Amino acid sequence: MIKDFKVPPIEIYNRSKRIQKVLQENNIDGLFIVQRVDLFYFSGTAQNGVLYMPAEGKPLLMIIKYMPRALEESSIDNIIEIKSQKDIPGKITDFYGDIPKVLGFEFDVLPVRDFNLYKNLFHGCECVDGSHLILQTRMIKSDWEIAQMEKAAELSEKTFEYMRSTICPGITEMEFAGMFETFARKFGHGGFLRSRNYQAIAYPWHILSGKSGGIVGFLDAPASGTGTSAAFPCGGGSKPLLPNEPIMIDFGTVLNGYHIDETRMFVIGSMPDKALKACEASIEIHNEVLANVKPGITVSELYHISVSKAVSLGYSDPFLGPPGHKVIFVGHGIGLELVENPIIAKDKGYLLEPGMTFSLEPKMVFENEFSAGIESVFLVTETGCRLISKVPVGIFIC
Amino acid sequence: MIKDFKVPPIEIYNRSKRIQKVLQENNIDGLFIVQRVDLFYFSGTAQNGVLYMPAEGKPLLMIIKYMPRALEESSIDNIIEIKSQKDIPGKITDFYGDIPKVLGFEFDVLPVRDFNLYKNLFHGCECVDGSHLILQTRMIKSDWEIAQMEKAAELSEKTFEYMRSTICPGITEMEFAGMFETFARKFGHGGFLRSRNYQAIAYPWHILSGKSGGIVGFLDAPASGTGTSAAFPCGGGSKPLLPNEPIMIDFGTVLNGYHIDETRMFVIGSMPDKALKACEASIEIHNEVLANVKPGITVSELYHISVSKAVSLGYSDPFLGPPGHKVIFVGHGIGLELVENPIIAKDKGYLLEPGMTFSLEPKMVFENEFSAGIESVFLVTETGCRLISKVPVGIFIC
Repeated sequence: MIKDFKVPPIEIYNRSKRIQKVLQENNIDGLFIVQRVDLFYFSGTAQNGVLYMPAEGKPLLMIIKYMPRALEESSIDNIIEIKSQKDIPGKITDFYGDIPKVLGFEFDVLPVRDFNLYKNLFHGCECVDGSHLILQTRMIKSDWEIAQMEKAAELSEKTFEYMRSTICPGITEMEFAGMFETFARKFGHGGFLRSRNYQAIAYPWHILSGKSGGIVGFLDAPASGTGTSAAFPCGGGSKPLLPNEPIMIDFGTVLNGYHIDETRMFVIGSMPDKALKACEASIEIHNEVLANVKPGITVSELYHISVSKAVSLGYSDPFLGPPGHKVIFVGHGIGLELVENPIIAKDKGYLLEPGMTFSLEPKMVFENEFSAGIESVFLVTETGCRLISKVPVGIFIC
Repeated sequence: MIKDFKVPPIEIYNRSKRIQKVLQENNIDGLFIVQRVDLFYFSGTAQNGVLYMPAEGKPLLMIIKYMPRALEESSIDNIIEIKSQKDIPGKITDFYGDIPKVLGFEFDVLPVRDFNLYKNLFHGCECVDGSHLILQTRMIKSDWEIAQMEKAAELSEKTFEYMRSTICPGITEMEFAGMFETFARKFGHGGFLRSRNYQAIAYPWHILSGKSGGIVGFLDAPASGTGTSAAFPCGGGSKPLLPNEPIMIDFGTVLNGYHIDETRMFVIGSMPDKALKACEASIEIHNEVLANVKPGITVSELYHISVSKAVSLGYSDPFLGPPGHKVIFVGHGIGLELVENPIIAKDKGYLLEPGMTFSLEPKMVFENEFSAGIESVFLVTETGCRLISKVPVGIFIC
């Protein structure tokens, strides 16, 4: 019925065991999982439903719509159909004997109105935030997940090759993005990048050519670009690509739910010296950070290594945004969502662990002029790191 | 700096006056507006910030990032820069003398964690749900807004023409969608459709060819299609378009923030008789509903008119989904979000009013066979309605 892709049962089993351990450590009796990506992670299906994850025992997947696909996709043992959320407390009592005392919810995404509904249904329970526990569990990728990301990286590599062979002057940012997205979709790109925060926007067309790259905006990113209008003021816009200008293409790939996030600088013709040097410096910073990645280092240390390198190369002003508008991170976790914990940020104490996957993006913004930078995805290994990205590290002169 | 498009100051002024009247009627002292689309509607900018809308007096726009663009885009008189949410209570006290007693929030989209932050900042205030008041205000479109939707409809018309001239067998659903989206982006299509609900997904590639149209899923829609994987189980997938099968293309257009949502049936060659008759019946139902639209009728009455017509034509089984999996609406409001209030639903009592804009989508699903249907956008006028849609009503035989 649907494409031949299924999360292996052992993945689902292991994920349940890991979150259950965390729930026990945090004295939470059960977790209520409704957000689509979390649901997919813990059950293998993204159909409309609710997963109840008890601190001990088997999880219960309650499907509102559509049961046949949930049964086909999920290896959860207990999958039942419900008419609406109102059926949930009764079903939980049926399966587990009673209602949990302390119940975790995804406070970072669950809207107040939905939460109030659940709170009324579980009258008397203590409702606590469980989202950080979910994200903490998702941080460490299994070998199977890494293999999925490798496949997405192959698709991204192929798409960057396509960009190199088709980029031409005169075409607009948004049209060119449409072309390479169409190419990628032919090989399974899902079109829609998953973003957790209700205010954040994720999209595959972050292409900032020449002056567009010098435009700051609302995004928590060094540059926002023009976007298509004030209603969507970020990413590609109507500016045509021009010869001899630095063109930043930040392309998000999603394949079977797993994301890759990569940036390369392009030029049609030859790059002005100032831009070329900035691109080369970004690559130096990128390589310097990678050389320092190892389990046990903190994300904050990596951030400071990137900043020190930028300063030593003479790029303190444009690095991570123009003065006064800098972002305070140089990378982010990545997986089933484009941006995941941990963020490689200034003040974060997360220790790197084997199995974490990151997008590393040292970028520079020369306000009203251009952006320069690079972005790769790497995996923390037992001894250091290795790139999951397969796109050649360099500047693409076309 | 950005594309030449700005929400006229008189629009912003009128919208403020309308919501302030509603706030007064509901005894709410002020409204806290943070969601991107609501912020854009009431201020003209979608930069990162918070709009405080008092029940009386001038609104205050507090921008976290990025002030120059907010100043350029918004005609709000009082725009100030803040470092973080923590500055907000102080700024409100500065501007209005004291903190409001009853404060409205967007409970339908605001996550619990964010709300808890605001609740602590406004300790002692009564916090209430104001989202329905926002949506109620946005329901009635101004002439300027209707003109924006007309422009989006022109872009959609042009894109459907493009589809007619390029559709061909062998190409996959997702690739064909990429092609027509690329075409549309050349003329300003924003790529990203706005969806309010954190669980809903909006995307422009809802193309269900042949058997894909017979696949139900988690979507609150008659059919979901395969999607690209279990991680994104809706919309177009990897199935190639085939000759002589009914192909449903449900295409969402967004131009300068305003949406159009239209569906047409295509066939490469000739449509099987069963599908052809179902397509024709859908058009009859569509026309029957339109003939009954007038101010004062309820959305529920329109829904029942569509169902009665389907029954009289002999299509009660497939109409609005296969038996057991039917949706209970035949259309929805549309504007700055793809789906807005009111929904043309079974149990809703909303009275139609001039200035409301709807997407009307009588669709049929023959499970495991195909979908048939049509979708147009119409405006409620003083005496009835008129189509905003410009795509010819009919079946596209290519």
